[in-house]
Amino acid sequence: MAGHVYNVTEIVGTSPESSDDAVKNAIAEASRTLRNLDWFEVQSIRGHLEDGYVADWQVTIKIGFRHEK
Amino acid sequence: MAGHVYNVTEIVGTSPESSDDAVKNAIAEASRTLRNLDWFEVQSIRGHLEDGYVADWQVTIKIGFRHEK
Amino acid sequence: MAGHVYNVTEIVGTSPESSDDAVKNAIAEASRTLRNLDWFEVQSIRGHLEDGYVADWQVTIKIGFRHEK
Amino acid sequence: MAGHVYNVTEIVGTSPESSDDAVKNAIAEASRTLRNLDWFEVQSIRGHLEDGYVADWQVTIKIGFRHEK
Amino acid sequence: MAGHVYNVTEIVGTSPESSDDAVKNAIAEASRTLRNLDWFEVQSIRGHLEDGYVADWQVTIKIGFRHEK
Amino acid sequence: MAGHVYNVTEIVGTSPESSDDAVKNAIAEASRTLRNLDWFEVQSIRGHLEDGYVADWQVTIKIGFRHEK
Amino acid sequence: MAGHVYNVTEIVGTSPESSDDAVKNAIAEASRTLRNLDWFEVQSIRGHLEDGYVADWQVTIKIGFRHEK
Amino acid sequence: MAGHVYNVTEIVGTSPESSDDAVKNAIAEASRTLRNLDWFEVQSIRGHLEDGYVADWQVTIKIGFRHEK
Amino acid sequence: MAGHVYNVTEIVGTSPESSDDAVKNAIAEASRTLRNLDWFEVQSIRGHLEDGYVADWQVTIKIGFRHEK
Amino acid sequence: MAGHVYNVTEIVGTSPESSDDAVKNAIAEASRTLRNLDWFEVQSIRGHLEDGYVADWQVTIKIGFRHEK
Amino acid sequence: MAGHVYNVTEIVGTSPESSDDAVKNAIAEASRTLRNLDWFEVQSIRGHLEDGYVADWQVTIKIGFRHEK
Amino acid sequence: MAGHVYNVTEIVGTSPESSDDAVKNAIAEASRTLRNLDWFEVQSIRGHLEDGYVADWQVTIKIGFRHEK
Repeated sequence: MAGHVYNVTEIVGTSPESSDDAVKNAIAEASRTLRNLDWFEVQSIRGHLEDGYVADWQVTIKIGFRHEK
Repeated sequence: MAGHVYNVTEIVGTSPESSDDAVKNAIAEASRTLRNLDWFEVQSIRGHLEDGYVADWQVTIKIGFRHEK
Repeated sequence: MAGHVYNVTEIVGTSPESSDDAVKNAIAEASRTLRNLDWFEVQSIRGHLEDGYVADWQVTIKIGFRHEK
Repeated sequence: MAGHVYNVTEIVGTSPESSDDAVKNAIAEASRTLRNLDWFEVQSIRGHLEDGYVADWQVTIKIGFRHEK
Repeated sequence: MAGHVYNVTEIVGTSPESSDDAVKNAIAEASRTLRNLDWFEVQSIRGHLEDGYVADWQVTIKIGFRHEK
Repeated sequence: MAGHVYNVTEIVGTSPESSDDAVKNAIAEASRTLRNLDWFEVQSIRGHLEDGYVADWQVTIKIGFRHEK
Repeated sequence: MAGHVYNVTEIVGTSPESSDDAVKNAIAEASRTLRNLDWFEVQSIRGHLEDGYVADWQVTIKIGFRHEK
Repeated sequence: MAGHVYNVTEIVGTSPESSDDAVKNAIAEASRTLRNLDWFEVQSIRGHLEDGYVADWQVTIKIGFRHEK
Repeated sequence: MAGHVYNVTEIVGTSPESSDDAVKNAIAEASRTLRNLDWFEVQSIRGHLEDGYVADWQVTIKIGFRHEK
Repeated sequence: MAGHVYNVTEIVGTSPESSDDAVKNAIAEASRTLRNLDWFEVQSIRGHLEDGYVADWQVTIKIGFRHEK
Repeated sequence: MAGHVYNVTEIVGTSPESSDDAVKNAIAEASRTLRNLDWFEVQSIRGHLEDGYVADWQVTIKIGFRHEK
Repeated sequence: MAGHVYNVTEIVGTSPESSDDAVKNAIAEASRTLRNLDWFEVQSIRGHLEDGYVADWQVTIKIGFRHEK
């Protein structure tokens, strides 16, 4: 990471499929507007229930991206 | 959520398959006796090991369900 | 508290008015089915937003009540 | 929340009136520049004291808003 | 734990004798109404003071018990 | 805050009225014996229940005050 | 607790005997200079080791005492 | 667990596939040098991003193993 | 802080020199694009190691800045 | 502690007798293979239940020991 | 620490120079009125910003001092 | 980090000079017996006081190192 500054942003990704998929969806959306994505860290794993099933996994992550000079 | 009161209960689901599956098993069991399940949040992800393998994923979740009036 | 055992239950109260009001609604609902309510502690203060306003305060509390012998 | 991605931003609202009012001021300011505000969660409740009185309530909240596609 | 689902309940036991005794009292009371108690975990150790002595140890624990099928 | 040292003290204020009022009562009492009160931060919001109502809000705060030279 | 204000002080009690004894020693010392001690809460349980044995249990507690008017 | 002593070690497993897979890789590596692995608990779920994708899931776990006498 | 609203942003500064220097680098970079920076708080102090030395201090901070009206 | 470096290891001691005894068993076992044990800190107090009784106290501690030069 | 009781007090030291210096200033001020200072622990590292620079490091510490008999 | 497994060890470094120096001393000692040190993270910053001065900075860190295949 030498010499760099990184910004950290918090995003909630959702997916009807899996918790990992919710993470990937958050990152895919972030990569549309931010460059130099470097790492992520899961903050919480939640979900919405309907009729006794997981309708949506909701995973909050922090994403770090390198500040361009 | 307007005008409602929700109860929160803590459950540990287990599965030999995956962490997501342990969550689903906890919710499936809860839905047999509780109605109006609304959301869940993962509290911890643990597991039991046997012979160097994950014999059981054990995921503790909180489940929120709407109090019927 | 001498000689007693207490149960702790987690409840989410909601209110369009205020955070304190959401706490009171949770306790009012709990007191309909539980006796000997003794104390509460706020766990989190959240809310739902609509059109840039707080549509609902959602306050999660733990309530302790004395186990009757 | 199905199929959506949410951004989370952290804001400190202040008010000489009350802690709830500080939350509302933070949300009112956020709604001037952000759309689709969906939820908030209180992070900390602090305040500035002058002459032995609360001159300002300072409430830090996280606000979640839906990412428009 | 293979194939099982566990419920977790929170209880405060009290005892004028010791912190361990407060834990045991909580478990003894829980075992009167719940079956298949499996584990506990201490959440907090508090107490009530009278005349400069510990009148009551108050220990909050979580108890996990197996859900019978 | 340049050049100063601050002490931090922990106080529990109570009020039958509201959580904000409990904070104000704690600060009012502190200001009777301490000078140069500068800030506070809420640590926990609890309360005592009687007959299914909040008999007393109990709010624990930390108060910072400037050390006089 | 109605109408009262409480101060909270942090103390470390030690004992070669047991963790409970370290708590009691902290309270006994506090009661020599403070009146109206009301409750305590354990913050951490540590100890000093010598020759592979516990030479001293060191238990940090918070003590709440009623502010006299 | 009667009569036993357990050691706890912290390991970071990685995987390009999934978070569960990163856990399994950590355990597989640990089982090459440690015997009597008994349980694990997830500490954090992070990952490295490249070109807007998850190049590596990095899951930190604690592993408990029975001390042989 | 009277009457103001503040935004909070999270940044990771790095430096081969010292942990304080990493903080300063994060703030220097933030001040290039943000005005009215008011305070910061350290979230974590980490670093990258090479050949048994600290190649880079990586300090994550939150920065609060006043929202201009 | 001047001039020294300490290692910290995490151990779970068990005992059918008491929580303090579980701590002592962990330390006794550690002292068989490690020298210069200096301090410990309790991380969690759990236990296994059988027939409504505490079959085993399980206390997780961190132990610090001086690195010999 | 055998046989002693310790008080813990919380102090915020400030310095325009460095985070370590803020710690030292807090301790220097504490040592003017308290005797037998034994240890400190950093609670938070914050600072005030002016014109894009750290005008003041503000470090909150807990200080433990031996209670004289 | 692709394809690797990392071990994490906890060490306390000390220094009469500075908090950063205590970190460096911990890493220097660790590098004498461990290879492939990759990162560290500060867990706590404490110190021993003598005559009102910091006699020793004591910084606890976690160090991650790559497991050699």
